[in-house]
Amino acid sequence: MNLLAIMTYESSPIGTEISCVMHGINIEILNNNILLKQIFLKALMEDNFKILDEVSHIFQPQGYTFVTLLAESHAAIHTFPEYNSLFFYLYSCRGQNDGRKTIKYLKQILNPSHMDMSERDIVVKSTKL
Amino acid sequence: MNLLAIMTYESSPIGTEISCVMHGINIEILNNNILLKQIFLKALMEDNFKILDEVSHIFQPQGYTFVTLLAESHAAIHTFPEYNSLFFYLYSCRGQNDGRKTIKYLKQILNPSHMDMSERDIVVKSTKL
Repeated sequence: MNLLAIMTYESSPIGTEISCVMHGINIEILNNNILLKQIFLKALMEDNFKILDEVSHIFQPQGYTFVTLLAESHAAIHTFPEYNSLFFYLYSCRGQNDGRKTIKYLKQILNPSHMDMSERDIVVKSTKL
Repeated sequence: MNLLAIMTYESSPIGTEISCVMHGINIEILNNNILLKQIFLKALMEDNFKILDEVSHIFQPQGYTFVTLLAESHAAIHTFPEYNSLFFYLYSCRGQNDGRKTIKYLKQILNPSHMDMSERDIVVKSTKL
C-alpha cells in the first residue's frame, strides 16, 4: 500500500446526480430486458463511464432492475411496464455536469413522450471543517 | 406466465428518493469497509427492505462502493475518506416517505458532523396520458 498516495489522493470534490423518470415509452421496448440492458450500457459508453460490475433482477409479473457499479460511482434503471415508464439514475463523482451524453442517448433511443428529470451537484468535500 | 396478473398488477405510482452526503465521519469508520457494509445492511433492515443482490468495489488508494439491488429498487453507499464523507442513495418504489428509518439509523451510527440531504417523490405513473 502506498501511504503517500493515500495522503495525497483526492477525488473531485463535486460530482453530479441525475435522476429521471421517462414516461410513455413503447411497451415492446420496456418488456425487452435484453434490449434495455444493451441500450443502457451503450448510453453509459457515450460518456466513457467505466463499468466495474453489474447486477440485475427480473421481477414477476413484470419489471426489471439493472444496476452498474462504475469507477465513477453507480448507475441504474428500473422499469415500470404497467405505467409505460422507466426510472434512470446516475451518480458520478467525476465532476459537474457529467452524464449528459448518457441521458441524451437514452432520450434519443427510448423516445419517451415526456420526462421528469432532476440534475444536481453532489458536494462531497465539506466546506464546514 | 399469468397474463391476468400482468394486466392487473400495478406497483405504487409514487416512490421515494433519498440522496445524502454525510460529512465529518470518523476516518476509522470510513476506512473500515467490512464495518460500513454491516452498518448499511442493518440500516436497510430498519425499513424492512428486501435485499435481492449486492455488489461492491474497493478502490485504490481508497474509497468503497457498496450497492444493493432491492425488491423495492436499489440503495448504495460511496465513501470519500479523503474528505471524511460518505454518500448515501436510496430509491424505493414502495411508496412515499420511505427509507426514513434507514437514514435515521445511518445518522445515529455514523454520527456525521453535518448532512446535505435531498428527499423527494418519484412519480412513475404519468399524469399526461
